[in-house]
Amino acid sequence: RKPLVIDQEEYICEIRKGSRLHLAKAITFIESTVTDQQTIGQQLLKSLLPFTGSSIRIGITGVPGAGKSTFIESFGKMLVDKGFKVAVLAIDPSSSVTGGSILGDKTRMEELAKHPNAFIRPSPSAGTLGGVHKKSRETMLLCEAAGYDVIFVETVGVGQSETIVRGMVDFFLLLALTGAGDELQGMKKGIMELADAIIVNKTDGTNEKLAKKTVAEYKQILHFLAPSTPNWITPALAVSSLYKTGLNAVWETILQFQSKMMSNQVWQNRRKDQTIDWFKTMIVNKLYDDFFSSMEKKQSMKQLEQLVREEKVTVSQAVEELFSSNSKE
Amino acid sequence: RKPLVIDQEEYICEIRKGSRLHLAKAITFIESTVTDQQTIGQQLLKSLLPFTGSSIRIGITGVPGAGKSTFIESFGKMLVDKGFKVAVLAIDPSSSVTGGSILGDKTRMEELAKHPNAFIRPSPSAGTLGGVHKKSRETMLLCEAAGYDVIFVETVGVGQSETIVRGMVDFFLLLALTGAGDELQGMKKGIMELADAIIVNKTDGTNEKLAKKTVAEYKQILHFLAPSTPNWITPALAVSSLYKTGLNAVWETILQFQSKMMSNQVWQNRRKDQTIDWFKTMIVNKLYDDFFSSMEKKQSMKQLEQLVREEKVTVSQAVEELFSSNSKE
Repeated sequence: RKPLVIDQEEYICEIRKGSRLHLAKAITFIESTVTDQQTIGQQLLKSLLPFTGSSIRIGITGVPGAGKSTFIESFGKMLVDKGFKVAVLAIDPSSSVTGGSILGDKTRMEELAKHPNAFIRPSPSAGTLGGVHKKSRETMLLCEAAGYDVIFVETVGVGQSETIVRGMVDFFLLLALTGAGDELQGMKKGIMELADAIIVNKTDGTNEKLAKKTVAEYKQILHFLAPSTPNWITPALAVSSLYKTGLNAVWETILQFQSKMMSNQVWQNRRKDQTIDWFKTMIVNKLYDDFFSSMEKKQSMKQLEQLVREEKVTVSQAVEELFSSNSKE
Repeated sequence: RKPLVIDQEEYICEIRKGSRLHLAKAITFIESTVTDQQTIGQQLLKSLLPFTGSSIRIGITGVPGAGKSTFIESFGKMLVDKGFKVAVLAIDPSSSVTGGSILGDKTRMEELAKHPNAFIRPSPSAGTLGGVHKKSRETMLLCEAAGYDVIFVETVGVGQSETIVRGMVDFFLLLALTGAGDELQGMKKGIMELADAIIVNKTDGTNEKLAKKTVAEYKQILHFLAPSTPNWITPALAVSSLYKTGLNAVWETILQFQSKMMSNQVWQNRRKDQTIDWFKTMIVNKLYDDFFSSMEKKQSMKQLEQLVREEKVTVSQAVEELFSSNSKE
């Protein structure tokens, strides 16, 4: 088979010039499970690394139905109208685990997608790790090198996804619905304490009064919780993605946050720490995957798990057994 | 060197009869870093495994100064007076990281320690993992085999200790001081959502009024948070460890919890899940430790960490480099 060869110089040049086609291809290389495609992706990323780091990275979460797509569409539209380039690492709604819209891709962020300064990349449902695509971080960096000023990373709350996304963004938004009391009971533990702002969406029509009451409730609770970012008072804000109200206040909040956290170095230090954490996570994942790469080891683990569950062996003995069968190979 | 030999039958018999001396020695074997001592410890544990599982396992956390030792002493004293056998896996206050009393071991839980039905085991400061001794789980099982009805596992909030301890107990207590608002700001994120009960300690003297107000505040916040255990409403309770008031209500709460969670199988299923989680954690830790066992690998990691921090290589490349130097050896 002929080895895959691309004109790397051309790719870098085109990506830097803003070619969405080349950016999309580079991301496909990064996400590929084929070794030489992966290698090309990594080489491109390495060459582009000096041009990364200047965007605002925003994570967005919320229960299904909270209106994440609609919010990103309206908010992103406002930003491109202000002259910013906006990238969205979206959740592929066709994936069964995401709980996304069943209407399919085309109906999500359709208006935003049409804008020349917007780039929307849905994550494939495969290749995720705790609910986040393994290469989301690299994809984000590629988007930065392509000159995107604001990057949204969407999460749908599967597995550890919020914690992982919080670990790669500067600012984390929690989209909420009205009726904090009921909703919070169903919210994942500790999720509010990951947020740098809580946005009560759908503050419109007959819902408006209730939404404003919900904002007040969230403010009250936030008062008692440790903030996600030191020296930051996490605000609760009312927004209507439909009527585009309150969106500017959200943007002002993010800019205030950036200005404050850049001047006290929290922004810069957090990014460095995030990179190192990511490095360590990748090491652990690789060790685990390598160790369980053989069918024998997977079988052995399954049997030992059963024995441990039935309390027939201690955990320490099971670990010893698992590793001793390794050295015999 | 002569191999270490013990009369295993005698140990098992003595531990089952309640000999604190033999129990203490068995724990020392389990905690040992010497291979043949470890092996003996594991053998003893394996033989004793059928006699484990019948205690109530209670985790206790709280900021330094919340009065954990005083609470355990008073609460434990009440339990031994009721006829229960009580074991405490305590934090060694001589350890600098724990933030425990600097008055030394003897002054902690002195009264309880004297009681024939109590067993207090301070964790050595070495050998901890995220703030919890690596062998705490095994130690807990040995105590159960020795017939202890209630086992307390103390945590001081270093690293991941609360999450780890929550992962090995049935019931998790958060000891709080008066003035929820101020205190919560300094509390670790998500800690309240780990608790099955919040105990406002030092509800006595001039502090009593404020303590009762604090209980009301906690109740209000808890109303909005997801409970640590499904179908359980996490209560806030006022206690004076000094005047021994409110202690019985705490015990009644724990018994109610046990009865409810046993009938809906949450208790049993949680224990099985905890064991499997522990198993998986031990595997990951061993993989990590084994991988970084050589000086070369440690050095290599240090250098790569620096390069990643300075953004001179991508995380993926650093991981590849780290593992490729492995295969060259």
